[in-house]
Amino acid sequence: MKNILIIGCGLIGSSLLRAIVKKKISKKIFIFEKSKTNILKIKKLKLPCIITSDFKKIIPKLDLIIFCTPMSEYEKIILKINRYLLPKTIITDVGSSKEIALTLIKKKLKKNISWVSSHPISGSEVSGPEFGHSSLFLSKWCILIKEQNSNRKHLTFLSKFWKKIGSKVVTMNAKRHDKIFSMTSHLPHLIAYNLVKTATDFEKQKKYDLIKFSAGGLRDFSRIAASNEIMWRDIFFNNQYNISKAIDLFIKNLKSFKKDINSKNNQSLIKKLVETKKVRKKIIKLKQDINKPDFGRN
Amino acid sequence: MKNILIIGCGLIGSSLLRAIVKKKISKKIFIFEKSKTNILKIKKLKLPCIITSDFKKIIPKLDLIIFCTPMSEYEKIILKINRYLLPKTIITDVGSSKEIALTLIKKKLKKNISWVSSHPISGSEVSGPEFGHSSLFLSKWCILIKEQNSNRKHLTFLSKFWKKIGSKVVTMNAKRHDKIFSMTSHLPHLIAYNLVKTATDFEKQKKYDLIKFSAGGLRDFSRIAASNEIMWRDIFFNNQYNISKAIDLFIKNLKSFKKDINSKNNQSLIKKLVETKKVRKKIIKLKQDINKPDFGRN
Repeated sequence: MKNILIIGCGLIGSSLLRAIVKKKISKKIFIFEKSKTNILKIKKLKLPCIITSDFKKIIPKLDLIIFCTPMSEYEKIILKINRYLLPKTIITDVGSSKEIALTLIKKKLKKNISWVSSHPISGSEVSGPEFGHSSLFLSKWCILIKEQNSNRKHLTFLSKFWKKIGSKVVTMNAKRHDKIFSMTSHLPHLIAYNLVKTATDFEKQKKYDLIKFSAGGLRDFSRIAASNEIMWRDIFFNNQYNISKAIDLFIKNLKSFKKDINSKNNQSLIKKLVETKKVRKKIIKLKQDINKPDFGRN
Repeated sequence: MKNILIIGCGLIGSSLLRAIVKKKISKKIFIFEKSKTNILKIKKLKLPCIITSDFKKIIPKLDLIIFCTPMSEYEKIILKINRYLLPKTIITDVGSSKEIALTLIKKKLKKNISWVSSHPISGSEVSGPEFGHSSLFLSKWCILIKEQNSNRKHLTFLSKFWKKIGSKVVTMNAKRHDKIFSMTSHLPHLIAYNLVKTATDFEKQKKYDLIKFSAGGLRDFSRIAASNEIMWRDIFFNNQYNISKAIDLFIKNLKSFKKDINSKNNQSLIKKLVETKKVRKKIIKLKQDINKPDFGRN
């Protein structure tokens, strides 16, 4: 490739930039970044890229555009770049929920322009270009969204691109994607936020100093609940329906746990606890985590 | 000290054994362990201890007895050792909930025998003597339960003991302990179990293969939900009242999150997400976790 444009150079954008450079995938990498703080950081880090907002000049020359901003930024940027886009331009994004975002994209995007959405399953609770690294996507799944009307040529191109980056690629439609990730990612994050909120409320109510004892479990959730609030608001709003369903199922199960505890239903409780252990084994077998005990980080 | 007896030599018991040896706290360490598998492991690991069940012979000579079994084992063992206990014998345990356990202990224990309860805030999702290590308690909190009628001499002795092991000691009564840890430890574990159960139920319902995509959040919860089921059943049953209250507060807050998401209440949602981030900073300041981003473990 000759020219790639990355829109938004935070954790994901800057990691992509670094990976593209490392794997020598493109001759030039252009960055559009609206945050002045991030631009200063990019310059200080000497990331090998050309920072630009001259869409008129660069877009016709581009092989690939990757949106790495929060999803709520998509519309504004599409409206800025629309007039320069060509049918040959390959466009993707890395957003974490798809159905609602893709409906909006389709509505806003100029006719005859394709958009094939990506979702690399990698990230962290930190934000900003200073935390990015070239191996963020290595051996991680990248979901490519394939609908009946998806541009097959662009899909093949993106599949090759993510594989070069080091990801394992799988395709599915937006509906299925949003259902799966409502459960494996969106609900867990919401639960982490909610747990930390609940502990804070309790601390205020009881005037107990409890955060200092958070090493017993709360600590791990607080890390997840420190993730970027704009990104997560966008995900929650954009996958509203599935997350709402997931919350209902979660509350139903939690009430059942409560019943077991209050009625001292040994058999039912032990069965639940043992079943979840099996899932852990499956997760390790599927290389989604390592089989190394965690005693807290020092 | 000359003689310590550790009852139950799993992760915590074997870590205590190793720490006592390393810090040269006692000349001899006796181990009572009912599991034949664990006994074989202890022998194979050549842990420096004397495995025994001859309570009659050893108890009169002991300076300290530490219960490291699941709490549901306490009664049976107390009834076995009761007749040999002397008022000078210092007894403690490392159980994670206190009020109900201490009521039972008081009821079963011979008259004039003291029991001062401990709770070291350390552990892991793994069980068994092969995972123990001498630094498990290093710089971690250890709660000592102090009631109006607690034996002050034993309390002082145990405080010194835990400090020698490397822990930071704090005292509080059982009621306060159980309230605090219902929120910082018991609820987080229950939530982790419940999240994994909910994902499994969803996978069965939808026939989606979702565990393979668990790196987006679910993975971290599955680790916590792989903790020992007997230990956690005992904790849940023994801190029933507080956990039940904590579940109610958690569900109330989760419903409020759901409302924000479904009504797209931007202001309310962002406020919640930002507040939880502050807790993270507090946790790091209080040295309950390190300030290092997590990208998943490789």
